[in-house]
Amino acid sequence: MCGILGVVARTPANQLLYDGLLMLQHRGQDAAGIVTAQGNTFHMHKGLGMVRDVFRTRNMRALAGNMGIGHVRYPTAGSSNSPAEAQPFYVNSPFGIVLAHNGNLTNADALNQELFLADRRHVNTNSDSEVLLNVLAHELQERATGYQLDPAEIFSAVFGVHERCQGAYAVITMIAGYGLLAFRDPHGIRPLVFGSIETGNGTEYMVASESVALDTLGFRLIRDVAPGEAIFIDVDGRFYSQRYLGPASLNPCIFEYVYLARPDSMMNGISIYETRLNMGINLADKISATMRHLDIDVVIPIPESSRPSAMQLANQLGIEFREGFVKNRYVGRTFIMPGQQQRRKSVRQKLNAIEIEFRGKNVLLVDDSIVRGTTSREIVQMAREAGANKIFFASAAPPVRYPNVYGIDMPTRQELIATDLADEEICYKIGADYLVFQNLDALKQSITRADPSVKSFETSCFDGHYITGNVTQDYLSRIESKRKIVSSTRVAHATQLDLSLLLAD
Amino acid sequence: MCGILGVVARTPANQLLYDGLLMLQHRGQDAAGIVTAQGNTFHMHKGLGMVRDVFRTRNMRALAGNMGIGHVRYPTAGSSNSPAEAQPFYVNSPFGIVLAHNGNLTNADALNQELFLADRRHVNTNSDSEVLLNVLAHELQERATGYQLDPAEIFSAVFGVHERCQGAYAVITMIAGYGLLAFRDPHGIRPLVFGSIETGNGTEYMVASESVALDTLGFRLIRDVAPGEAIFIDVDGRFYSQRYLGPASLNPCIFEYVYLARPDSMMNGISIYETRLNMGINLADKISATMRHLDIDVVIPIPESSRPSAMQLANQLGIEFREGFVKNRYVGRTFIMPGQQQRRKSVRQKLNAIEIEFRGKNVLLVDDSIVRGTTSREIVQMAREAGANKIFFASAAPPVRYPNVYGIDMPTRQELIATDLADEEICYKIGADYLVFQNLDALKQSITRADPSVKSFETSCFDGHYITGNVTQDYLSRIESKRKIVSSTRVAHATQLDLSLLLAD
Amino acid sequence: MCGILGVVARTPANQLLYDGLLMLQHRGQDAAGIVTAQGNTFHMHKGLGMVRDVFRTRNMRALAGNMGIGHVRYPTAGSSNSPAEAQPFYVNSPFGIVLAHNGNLTNADALNQELFLADRRHVNTNSDSEVLLNVLAHELQERATGYQLDPAEIFSAVFGVHERCQGAYAVITMIAGYGLLAFRDPHGIRPLVFGSIETGNGTEYMVASESVALDTLGFRLIRDVAPGEAIFIDVDGRFYSQRYLGPASLNPCIFEYVYLARPDSMMNGISIYETRLNMGINLADKISATMRHLDIDVVIPIPESSRPSAMQLANQLGIEFREGFVKNRYVGRTFIMPGQQQRRKSVRQKLNAIEIEFRGKNVLLVDDSIVRGTTSREIVQMAREAGANKIFFASAAPPVRYPNVYGIDMPTRQELIATDLADEEICYKIGADYLVFQNLDALKQSITRADPSVKSFETSCFDGHYITGNVTQDYLSRIESKRKIVSSTRVAHATQLDLSLLLAD
Amino acid sequence: MCGILGVVARTPANQLLYDGLLMLQHRGQDAAGIVTAQGNTFHMHKGLGMVRDVFRTRNMRALAGNMGIGHVRYPTAGSSNSPAEAQPFYVNSPFGIVLAHNGNLTNADALNQELFLADRRHVNTNSDSEVLLNVLAHELQERATGYQLDPAEIFSAVFGVHERCQGAYAVITMIAGYGLLAFRDPHGIRPLVFGSIETGNGTEYMVASESVALDTLGFRLIRDVAPGEAIFIDVDGRFYSQRYLGPASLNPCIFEYVYLARPDSMMNGISIYETRLNMGINLADKISATMRHLDIDVVIPIPESSRPSAMQLANQLGIEFREGFVKNRYVGRTFIMPGQQQRRKSVRQKLNAIEIEFRGKNVLLVDDSIVRGTTSREIVQMAREAGANKIFFASAAPPVRYPNVYGIDMPTRQELIATDLADEEICYKIGADYLVFQNLDALKQSITRADPSVKSFETSCFDGHYITGNVTQDYLSRIESKRKIVSSTRVAHATQLDLSLLLAD
Repeated sequence: MCGILGVVARTPANQLLYDGLLMLQHRGQDAAGIVTAQGNTFHMHKGLGMVRDVFRTRNMRALAGNMGIGHVRYPTAGSSNSPAEAQPFYVNSPFGIVLAHNGNLTNADALNQELFLADRRHVNTNSDSEVLLNVLAHELQERATGYQLDPAEIFSAVFGVHERCQGAYAVITMIAGYGLLAFRDPHGIRPLVFGSIETGNGTEYMVASESVALDTLGFRLIRDVAPGEAIFIDVDGRFYSQRYLGPASLNPCIFEYVYLARPDSMMNGISIYETRLNMGINLADKISATMRHLDIDVVIPIPESSRPSAMQLANQLGIEFREGFVKNRYVGRTFIMPGQQQRRKSVRQKLNAIEIEFRGKNVLLVDDSIVRGTTSREIVQMAREAGANKIFFASAAPPVRYPNVYGIDMPTRQELIATDLADEEICYKIGADYLVFQNLDALKQSITRADPSVKSFETSCFDGHYITGNVTQDYLSRIESKRKIVSSTRVAHATQLDLSLLLAD
Repeated sequence: MCGILGVVARTPANQLLYDGLLMLQHRGQDAAGIVTAQGNTFHMHKGLGMVRDVFRTRNMRALAGNMGIGHVRYPTAGSSNSPAEAQPFYVNSPFGIVLAHNGNLTNADALNQELFLADRRHVNTNSDSEVLLNVLAHELQERATGYQLDPAEIFSAVFGVHERCQGAYAVITMIAGYGLLAFRDPHGIRPLVFGSIETGNGTEYMVASESVALDTLGFRLIRDVAPGEAIFIDVDGRFYSQRYLGPASLNPCIFEYVYLARPDSMMNGISIYETRLNMGINLADKISATMRHLDIDVVIPIPESSRPSAMQLANQLGIEFREGFVKNRYVGRTFIMPGQQQRRKSVRQKLNAIEIEFRGKNVLLVDDSIVRGTTSREIVQMAREAGANKIFFASAAPPVRYPNVYGIDMPTRQELIATDLADEEICYKIGADYLVFQNLDALKQSITRADPSVKSFETSCFDGHYITGNVTQDYLSRIESKRKIVSSTRVAHATQLDLSLLLAD
Repeated sequence: MCGILGVVARTPANQLLYDGLLMLQHRGQDAAGIVTAQGNTFHMHKGLGMVRDVFRTRNMRALAGNMGIGHVRYPTAGSSNSPAEAQPFYVNSPFGIVLAHNGNLTNADALNQELFLADRRHVNTNSDSEVLLNVLAHELQERATGYQLDPAEIFSAVFGVHERCQGAYAVITMIAGYGLLAFRDPHGIRPLVFGSIETGNGTEYMVASESVALDTLGFRLIRDVAPGEAIFIDVDGRFYSQRYLGPASLNPCIFEYVYLARPDSMMNGISIYETRLNMGINLADKISATMRHLDIDVVIPIPESSRPSAMQLANQLGIEFREGFVKNRYVGRTFIMPGQQQRRKSVRQKLNAIEIEFRGKNVLLVDDSIVRGTTSREIVQMAREAGANKIFFASAAPPVRYPNVYGIDMPTRQELIATDLADEEICYKIGADYLVFQNLDALKQSITRADPSVKSFETSCFDGHYITGNVTQDYLSRIESKRKIVSSTRVAHATQLDLSLLLAD
Repeated sequence: MCGILGVVARTPANQLLYDGLLMLQHRGQDAAGIVTAQGNTFHMHKGLGMVRDVFRTRNMRALAGNMGIGHVRYPTAGSSNSPAEAQPFYVNSPFGIVLAHNGNLTNADALNQELFLADRRHVNTNSDSEVLLNVLAHELQERATGYQLDPAEIFSAVFGVHERCQGAYAVITMIAGYGLLAFRDPHGIRPLVFGSIETGNGTEYMVASESVALDTLGFRLIRDVAPGEAIFIDVDGRFYSQRYLGPASLNPCIFEYVYLARPDSMMNGISIYETRLNMGINLADKISATMRHLDIDVVIPIPESSRPSAMQLANQLGIEFREGFVKNRYVGRTFIMPGQQQRRKSVRQKLNAIEIEFRGKNVLLVDDSIVRGTTSREIVQMAREAGANKIFFASAAPPVRYPNVYGIDMPTRQELIATDLADEEICYKIGADYLVFQNLDALKQSITRADPSVKSFETSCFDGHYITGNVTQDYLSRIESKRKIVSSTRVAHATQLDLSLLLAD
């Protein structure tokens, strides 16, 4: 998962891009980058770390120009933790293009080879986003007649990309001297929205992964970029768009609704928050049906993202809802000193229980999902130490059983707690007295109830059905083994990564 | 407000101090410092910024030794934003002493002069904590016979400090070669607790502003340091303590319960969380009595600290409780570029409303307190834009009308919205349809209900009654004018400070 | 003037490149960069400042691979002081090419336009080196058949570059997956040498601006790259070379001999040191002929580069040679504080006179050249204050009267002291009692005496004759006005630049 | 060896102190620090590294005030490479004092114990300078009556320091609110001079290790501080001085003349440059007498410091003097990469031979001294590879056979090449054909010839006679073993230190 952003403004865009990336920071804390365009010149700054750490005054000062794109990175499967792989990427031929990408190409290796053999294009990193940029560059090269470009040629090139690239991609690019181009893969897996604001100097546009970046910066959401569609805003602020005429359908990644997106975002016309309320209702129905014999005293969410579901679930069941956990907002590091023995880190440094809410009670803990299960186990243990009588555990999503290949950094199947286990076995492993998962159909219904026009979802991590059709067992094994190699070279960042995984667990 | 921490461990203490400061980070994000003692040698590192930014691997490596103290700073009235004023402070005569202080001395100027005239001691900064350290040093100098110190002499010196210093001070110090000394002023204004853990190598001790640092790091809370009491743990881990025989009584700062402390802390034997639930109950009672005619559809907390009160208030009133605001976890900066026009910053970058919870409803917003009122006004405005029908506003604390002189960085009276206004006028100014404040007595009762043994509180910011008795109008005017001078030299940090003030509003 | 370096080794090349750049640091202290090739992947790090400041351990660790190129930059006319313009540059199409360049293209603007119109190539900076790289890339693109390259195609592409580019260029590049390519413009203006070392793992090659990088790192100098020639060392260490069959002749920049190159370098088969000795002999002859009536007591060099000439001059005249000046090795900055008055900086902070060598004597000061004359004037003044009786001044080179357009950062004609002045007027302006310049013919003879096979030199800064034939008055005016604009945006670095100009003056 | 500096100016002193430290940088590149006094407040910044690296704009901005002191550190025996031990040091009782020290106390351990037992003063580092500061503080404490100080009390305190401290110390201090105090030990071992300049605002004073700092910044040298003397300049610029009435005599460290000081400094009334010329004359006399049978073609100095001696030696012998070596001005680092094999570093990266000056000749290499002999051996080897026929080696100083305990960081006796060897054996070890050392008497005469009033020198490193009388075998062994321990913890800086040792060898 990553966050992408583009702005065509009428005054310097650097602060707007910075503020917008902050609003997308929950989509990636690993690296950040901004490119602005000033006339025909690009100014770029990118680096490892969070937005507030990557951009200093001197960097911001150098990011001149009224137009720009930005990226926050969450490491995807197999990517290395290198500043060279921070986005956006740049190629200078043809025209000068910079690109920011959210998603993952499932045929990146084949494309890479094709690019070299047919077009002699050098892809310097292991990033599939650099491959995608070169495919786009090649398609533009093919279509450009002379040194001039028009929107039709640009859109034609994007559709050429659709013919060649498989997987998930929401993309924002700039073409030097021309404007800002954004597009979304024909399956519509990863989100992309755009909006505008009227200023004294004319209309300004923003394109972003989530609508929250628009809202909070004063832009009015227009709509989502449609599956396969491309939009183009030229340097003078003229807006163009074109739908893809090839096969296209909307299959949004269901995990965005479960956990990834901010609750105050609208995605594909649906309020994330509302879908999470619905997940609470549906989960309450299942609990009513299956846990009838259980005597729940209190419903306690595991912060942050499960809060709406848990609250609505409690409402629906007519059981008291209480905030039993306090989340620590400040995250630090573990320093590995030569010859120093490590104290065991407690999950309590991240999440602390308020004893009064647990002592002697039968508690129902609600989380958005269970991935590895390690944090769930620690939280159950903490609840028990806080004096809980019985501990029931509810997951607003079904068990995660398959890797994600469309841009979310999921563990390998070996690490997923649910891979080969039945619900009872998972319950035993996390130490709970009872465990209930949302059904996949109920999860889908939580979303379609809010907008019946969405018919299909990308649900592979729950059911192993990969929407793009080209994901083989062999492919999965390959990316999993890449993942392991990369992991083993990342010891230095281990703690940080572990902490962040808490979010997803 | 600041956070202080001390550890006497059996293995290197640096990571423990770092982790503990992270747990106290909510008490101060302005500067951080750690001193460790290795044999007779102190190792110190301190700097401006948050814990995660101040301590790098090379700094941690240099912080050798099994014993240490730490500090996180929230700027207090009149302090400058200089790294030289980061704590802990050090004096080398007598013995070598380092000190970390939470609170504020109200007679610092007089003491400073006294120190110089009588003892020729140089105080290099404007920090009252450096004054306090020198008073302690002088008292130790006076009592030490030869070059040896025993606990009785140390305690006697602390009681000498009590005779001379006025104001609030929770203090943790180390004396080179001797051990860790902690004490609390005889009014017991600022909090200080201690606890221990048994390890294979013997007992380890931790002293901290809040119990949450102990809990999360595996230490068992023993109790609070009593008003005027001093405790001393020598380098071999032997524990000593002595009560102050002079006038001493417990008057904890009531604002700790309202806003400052973490809900999962125990303070003076009382669960912060529980007192906040009680605030909700008491506020509900007032609302029932006075707002009977109002038709509230939903109770919405203003995150984070008002959540328990709001939830309990909703329970008590039997009205639905909903999370209508999403707080942005990622805070950035505003870069001031030469010749660049600033866009108006929206409060929505810090807090965003979920429209579905506001549209067409009569909402009761609950906050912990109202200080300047600027953020309250913006939030009311945001609720209105989200479609709220009527907007009622409840504050879990009475209006803040007086400056704090005991270590909390409150605005001047001129900036406090409530200084000369009645409740109705405040309501009008923040744009709400109705405004209700907790009564001071009800606030006190929220705490004493949890522990009736606490008889008195430091409540000056609500009622202007300063517990130490020596706070004159003249003194207040003086610190307010100092505050203005310092503020005007802080333009560069303006945005950051403004953002942090959101927390207190 | 810049320094360039390339290495094809058998073990990791990063330290070798770092050490080599240090040996070329005198050719540019403004920026530094290294690219290594590891398989098909390039690793790059570059930044503003000196080699020791730009490369940290983490950067070096990332520069993996056995092959690499490096660059140290001296700002050339019109270049900006931006990290984005630090070299090497990279393009990814075709093949992936990185390039480091010493020199200056005099038709860069026209090429830039041509590149865009004909090839849609985007040049993102104002650097002529990025233009040169794109010309090379285009020529390779044109010649490559399929995705394979062979040395013949590579050499043909270089010769295509020769057809299009005018000016001076010594170039080292790497082509991803293929090897290291180096070439020199057909006029042979800027220097380029190569050599090899036999190791247990096979032959290793180094290409560099000056032989001193080879000598000191254990490589044996083979020879200079011939004017127009290209050499190519493939990834397996096989060496290829091809002469240019178009018009080519050797016209080395005469200023390399006068001042730029290190004395211990061999350039075009000639020892720099020896040519400087010869300059001393020839200058002595002129002095004998013209200053017969003067009574010189002592010859004193102005350190560092004039020392060999001065020493030999003294020998030839039979006059005592003394080191009367001490040069300060440590250079700092002038900090511009708000509201602070600047003390006048004395040249004595850079160069200090030893009074005993001046008091009461007639001294002959010898410098390598006179450019702006400001430092000369200060030095004469210093000698006078040290008590010199008469002060004669000799320049081992003729007066500098014209800008350099081949890669040396010379002042504009307006700033050159000699532009419109006769020798006597210059003498008066610098305050000396007598001034003698080397004749241009004598200067040339100083070099050809060491190697009669060099027939021609690039001598434009002395005689205004630009060897490439395309340098018009209009062109000169244009680059001078660019120079002024850039200068005025560089106030922050003013002091540093002024100090470095001392070297050339 | 360190460099110390003090300024009492009429306008902000920060840039003056910075520029002055640059002029003393040759006396220490290990760490640097500045303290300024603004009213009663000290501002301090210090750190590891060279002046240009330690002080950034923000640090300079914070160094407000018209008065200040500075220090550059060369690590002395047993000191650790820690930023905490960078000077100046500060104590706050009495008065507030900061101190910068050049030299070494030989009774530091005893004083440290005494300070603690009698005065309970804590010395936090291993630095003898911190001990010295505390002795001074104690003596001031004893003498101060009330909170006022007058010059007589201050001078009396300094003389109290003389009674207690043994060893070498040139010291500059500031007393908060009073002024700048400087003094020199009664043996006058380390240098200290002062001077003044008249400005529009009144007289300004500078005190420094070497006169070159005064000269180059426009101050007029007044004289040396006499052995045991103290000078005091109060905050209003009034000058006071008092001679020490106890036993005092001038015994300047002879190594300052041989190598340490800059040639353009005046020390104890003597021109360093002139003494080095005299060393050349005296060495020539010895060579004439003893090497009569040798046929020397050319005299070649080993840069930098031996140049005047070598030149005068050549003059005296009537042999040609040539610059056969080029010194590299740019020093870098060796990066130790995991699993990477190190290439052998050649001395040629520091010093390169110009073959033409060696080929077929009998060369006399002249160095200022021989310490470890490792560099000498490498240089002889380089001369041989450059084709020298016979290689004679002359040292302008006698062989170094004993450690220095007065502030110069000499190797242990085990590492000194000359410890147990006769001249012939040393010659064999460095690979020369003949080796000649200056006699100690001749060395002394080189200095006294310039000023016969200096009767005695500190010559212990040549003859083992320690002027302070208290240096026992036991003491020497103790500091040597400390040195080894410290060295072994400095692996990370090994290369850097080795490079710097080249200077002394």
